[in-house]
Amino acid sequence: MYSFKNDYSEGAHPRILNALMESNFEQEDGYGEDRYTSEAIKLIKEKLERTDVDIHLLAGGTQTNLTAISAFLRPHEAAMAASTGHILGHETGAIEATGHKIISIDTKDGKLNPSHLQAVLDGHPDEHMVKPKLVYISNSTEIGTIYKKNELAALKDFCDENNLILFMDGARLGSALCSSENDLQLSDLPALVDAFYIGGTKNGALIGEALVICRDSLKEDFRYHIKQKGGLLAKGRLLGIQFLELFRDNLFFDLAGHANRMADLLKVELSGANIQFLTDSPSNQIFPILPNTVISELEKKYAFHIWEKVDSDQSGIRLVASWATKEDKVAAFIDDLKKALT
Amino acid sequence: MYSFKNDYSEGAHPRILNALMESNFEQEDGYGEDRYTSEAIKLIKEKLERTDVDIHLLAGGTQTNLTAISAFLRPHEAAMAASTGHILGHETGAIEATGHKIISIDTKDGKLNPSHLQAVLDGHPDEHMVKPKLVYISNSTEIGTIYKKNELAALKDFCDENNLILFMDGARLGSALCSSENDLQLSDLPALVDAFYIGGTKNGALIGEALVICRDSLKEDFRYHIKQKGGLLAKGRLLGIQFLELFRDNLFFDLAGHANRMADLLKVELSGANIQFLTDSPSNQIFPILPNTVISELEKKYAFHIWEKVDSDQSGIRLVASWATKEDKVAAFIDDLKKALT
Amino acid sequence: MYSFKNDYSEGAHPRILNALMESNFEQEDGYGEDRYTSEAIKLIKEKLERTDVDIHLLAGGTQTNLTAISAFLRPHEAAMAASTGHILGHETGAIEATGHKIISIDTKDGKLNPSHLQAVLDGHPDEHMVKPKLVYISNSTEIGTIYKKNELAALKDFCDENNLILFMDGARLGSALCSSENDLQLSDLPALVDAFYIGGTKNGALIGEALVICRDSLKEDFRYHIKQKGGLLAKGRLLGIQFLELFRDNLFFDLAGHANRMADLLKVELSGANIQFLTDSPSNQIFPILPNTVISELEKKYAFHIWEKVDSDQSGIRLVASWATKEDKVAAFIDDLKKALT
Amino acid sequence: MYSFKNDYSEGAHPRILNALMESNFEQEDGYGEDRYTSEAIKLIKEKLERTDVDIHLLAGGTQTNLTAISAFLRPHEAAMAASTGHILGHETGAIEATGHKIISIDTKDGKLNPSHLQAVLDGHPDEHMVKPKLVYISNSTEIGTIYKKNELAALKDFCDENNLILFMDGARLGSALCSSENDLQLSDLPALVDAFYIGGTKNGALIGEALVICRDSLKEDFRYHIKQKGGLLAKGRLLGIQFLELFRDNLFFDLAGHANRMADLLKVELSGANIQFLTDSPSNQIFPILPNTVISELEKKYAFHIWEKVDSDQSGIRLVASWATKEDKVAAFIDDLKKALT
Repeated sequence: MYSFKNDYSEGAHPRILNALMESNFEQEDGYGEDRYTSEAIKLIKEKLERTDVDIHLLAGGTQTNLTAISAFLRPHEAAMAASTGHILGHETGAIEATGHKIISIDTKDGKLNPSHLQAVLDGHPDEHMVKPKLVYISNSTEIGTIYKKNELAALKDFCDENNLILFMDGARLGSALCSSENDLQLSDLPALVDAFYIGGTKNGALIGEALVICRDSLKEDFRYHIKQKGGLLAKGRLLGIQFLELFRDNLFFDLAGHANRMADLLKVELSGANIQFLTDSPSNQIFPILPNTVISELEKKYAFHIWEKVDSDQSGIRLVASWATKEDKVAAFIDDLKKALT
Repeated sequence: MYSFKNDYSEGAHPRILNALMESNFEQEDGYGEDRYTSEAIKLIKEKLERTDVDIHLLAGGTQTNLTAISAFLRPHEAAMAASTGHILGHETGAIEATGHKIISIDTKDGKLNPSHLQAVLDGHPDEHMVKPKLVYISNSTEIGTIYKKNELAALKDFCDENNLILFMDGARLGSALCSSENDLQLSDLPALVDAFYIGGTKNGALIGEALVICRDSLKEDFRYHIKQKGGLLAKGRLLGIQFLELFRDNLFFDLAGHANRMADLLKVELSGANIQFLTDSPSNQIFPILPNTVISELEKKYAFHIWEKVDSDQSGIRLVASWATKEDKVAAFIDDLKKALT
Repeated sequence: MYSFKNDYSEGAHPRILNALMESNFEQEDGYGEDRYTSEAIKLIKEKLERTDVDIHLLAGGTQTNLTAISAFLRPHEAAMAASTGHILGHETGAIEATGHKIISIDTKDGKLNPSHLQAVLDGHPDEHMVKPKLVYISNSTEIGTIYKKNELAALKDFCDENNLILFMDGARLGSALCSSENDLQLSDLPALVDAFYIGGTKNGALIGEALVICRDSLKEDFRYHIKQKGGLLAKGRLLGIQFLELFRDNLFFDLAGHANRMADLLKVELSGANIQFLTDSPSNQIFPILPNTVISELEKKYAFHIWEKVDSDQSGIRLVASWATKEDKVAAFIDDLKKALT
Repeated sequence: MYSFKNDYSEGAHPRILNALMESNFEQEDGYGEDRYTSEAIKLIKEKLERTDVDIHLLAGGTQTNLTAISAFLRPHEAAMAASTGHILGHETGAIEATGHKIISIDTKDGKLNPSHLQAVLDGHPDEHMVKPKLVYISNSTEIGTIYKKNELAALKDFCDENNLILFMDGARLGSALCSSENDLQLSDLPALVDAFYIGGTKNGALIGEALVICRDSLKEDFRYHIKQKGGLLAKGRLLGIQFLELFRDNLFFDLAGHANRMADLLKVELSGANIQFLTDSPSNQIFPILPNTVISELEKKYAFHIWEKVDSDQSGIRLVASWATKEDKVAAFIDDLKKALT
């Protein structure tokens, strides 16, 4: 059984484990005040070409989303998100548990644009409703699509004009930035969003997301929020060492690039076999539509998620490639698929 | 500079890192549904000699405290804790952030007893005040003391009679159970408390606390709470592998035993030098009272916390020994202390 | 200018003010422990033909909704409501502010049925999502429709089978029960819902909603929740005296009946003039669709809400009749409307 | 049985009920947007000699406290209060339920001063603890004492220097301002605190507190918070009409003055009989210490609270006089007390 279920099935890239080994007996201060965390943050700032951002290392995506969003909003303010957004459907009401409504927006492709936001603002005119304030986007999105630079810029302009906060969930940012269709640089982001994070967990780390706060008014006292929400690890070095390794050279991008290439291999072959897709995804997740009989056949040897029923005979499945996905397994999958299709 | 500041200055016990290495490329399901987590839970249940408890692996102490306490209480119910309790003074209002008051109880030794609780109940007669419901204790406590079996039994009886929940923070449970003054077995605990956790972070793991829910009515839907509070790690294997290693044999207790022995070495020598202590601590934290001049001298070579001012000339400091504390460093510290005292 | 904007434009029925006058200098205990509140509760229980329900008097609808729903749910549990539900769009995120997501359900007529609920349950299979638990319905609904007895019974059966809580917002319950299409008795309700409230504010009281908790497991400690959420009035007599007056005889129903008759007068005449309606409403709120030119003309003499744009030339408006609506004003409105239409 | 239990045993001053009667059938907009509320706010601003404050009318004290404090604080910030403060012991954890810790400060007389606050700040140095931010004081306090102008000024200076928010609970502000020992004017307050409220419920209204927000940064969007917390009454006129009547002339102060005079009568006679008091209270609440036998005798004819046990033979009781307390009942109480003492 080989798994294409997600991008967190394996442990960590070996260089990360080695770095943990090598540093293991050094004594470091706790709670993110260790030398490795400082160096990792310094390095990421260099990659961002910015010294005026605040960076915090957190353990996971839900933790980062709930900590940031609850820190950024006042009690009567709400987040807005595409209905496919991770905070809406896969975080067990974590944002609402901090007191904030999320306004759900239906989209074609999992991406928000200014007209979506304008419609929400128009529908929330007064104090009998929540005040829409934070725009939550994911890049890449939960259905594999990515934001182009001009799309982000349009969102940012709209947010600035309407005093909204633009927050980007980057759990799969590596895959987005390494997509063949991408035109964004990591260093573009601080000018294009108010805060975002760089996902480590789904790109080769054991755990870890690097939250980058770009807008000054959102920075104050942020470590209090991390601690209060249970996210300040005693051995913060665990996060620092990993991000230091990921960004010491090009490892972060190499890993994401590998994942995308493996997904592309699958996509090209599937397309060649006239398979349709639920979404046009240029990142490490693809969503082919297959006959149920083929799916059953594949399930004997491969693990993946059945995403949604398309009709009585076909379903869309999700195939996820990761930094650790093996090319020979991809080839084997393609072979098995072709056999099943005939 | 050698640090006695805390028990989380180093990484993890090498066996844990090796286990991470060896399992690294195995594909596992996420969110704690991996094989290692299952095995670790099975193993801990065996050590507890109980199959009827629920066990969940979480990342850290504050996360575990806030998740458990908010899951266990209804909105109008409050926790009670010794004023030295970790949730009162060192978790940034994490419990209150979930909506619950903590009633602070002054104690001599950081430990609660039934008369403390009775006084709280007497002072909370009606619906104009919160309803005291959960008793939070730590073992070992934040000031190094430990609970004896009969003390826990008395608390449990009181809680049962008054329909209270007894919850034990075991961030340093290893040290408590390996104390020379301890008369508790790990397997005694399920009968003596309603829920508790076994701390890994402060006893040789990178991260990890194993929460044991003993009382049936507290078990339902607990994974929802972990996920909602941001504590369900995508790579749950990271927790499972570590606890499996700690409890595969006697490693957990060996590490705690080492920490206690190092603290005992310090205590014996300090006592021998007629040093007094803030508390009578039989665990891995000790709190000697030293002349400020001596403290200044020691600070040149050692890191530790100054706990509290005693008078204009003396302060109490905290020395913490851990699984990684080196015996030669302890000896060196004692030598340096003796020199400074003369 | 005469207002059909809502059913809370005037003060209270004169009998209520008289009752306040007459009792004014009697000394009573505070916080709902006065004689009037006790008598009012006893009287409502008689009307309900049940002694085994708990009744609490609260000040307003949002207060009642947020207090009850947050008391009834555990942290990971969510409410479900029609997208038109008051808690979704007109209470400023009050429920989310207590930590709970509301799952929005699109409906034709503002009413929920078991198939709506089944679809929600199907879409929430595990701990990565909230657990749907409480079904919020309004009777009459926010768009004037009402529940028939068999519809409520079907919902209750579904809720019982799926361990859900059925909660009815009765801010306009009087109007629903006095509708010409209604087949429910007030005394039917305790068997058909787990909790509901009888709205006073929109039916002749200054303030006041009587919450009836029918299900035993929801009753415990409820006064704590009222107090914690700021709803326990020091002069609880203000609520007791009003509900005593409303239920001392048939006043509650007389007032609601008057409101419905005034709405019916409007509806009959509007229908006779071939006016269409946004919804088929048999209660005290009606939603006729009028040409925008006619609306502009009417706005010179009457106040009402423009509910929604229908097309470029027409809009739906909301006309609300209340216990205090004057028949001659209704007649005048109809005259003015007819003139405007010609 | 005559009650000295509290200052909310009776209804409202007759002028208030008359005003409700006279305005009853006027149609007004809901949610505090009525003409009466506007006029009341205008009038209070005139009394405050300030046009640059925001005023909101809310139903009760707990509601006002929880709405204001949760609106003013960010998630990691805490309130500070005297241990006798109403929010600490008599509001069922209402503040904590909005996510904020209250730091309890022991005092002699229920009043805070800068040295209390400095000690709290000193004890909260970093992000492992909450950030102390809002100073909650009551005037008069829960034990009858009042703040002098220089005391308030010293607190305000300290708060300004330390970027703290000074919030005054004025549930019994009338009694404080009309105390014989008072040197504050109502119009002094906007310069001396950041926000405060003028209590109506305990000074002759049915319900109602007028919250005055003086500091600009606390004003934004406040109506959202009121609505979200369930405090925006549909018939906001009920609050407007009452405050208009209380401040139309000197009624508010006349009522408070009467209450104080009745308390003074009691105090003078009790002092004359060599009775000691728990606190030196110059307002409408006094706390005489009486033999338990005398208390038992008095309880046959009078209702009051036994505040605390003093020794095995004596207890402190609380006697509260109000706008409605009758002088002949005070005289009768004194007679009965003297008899009981002999």
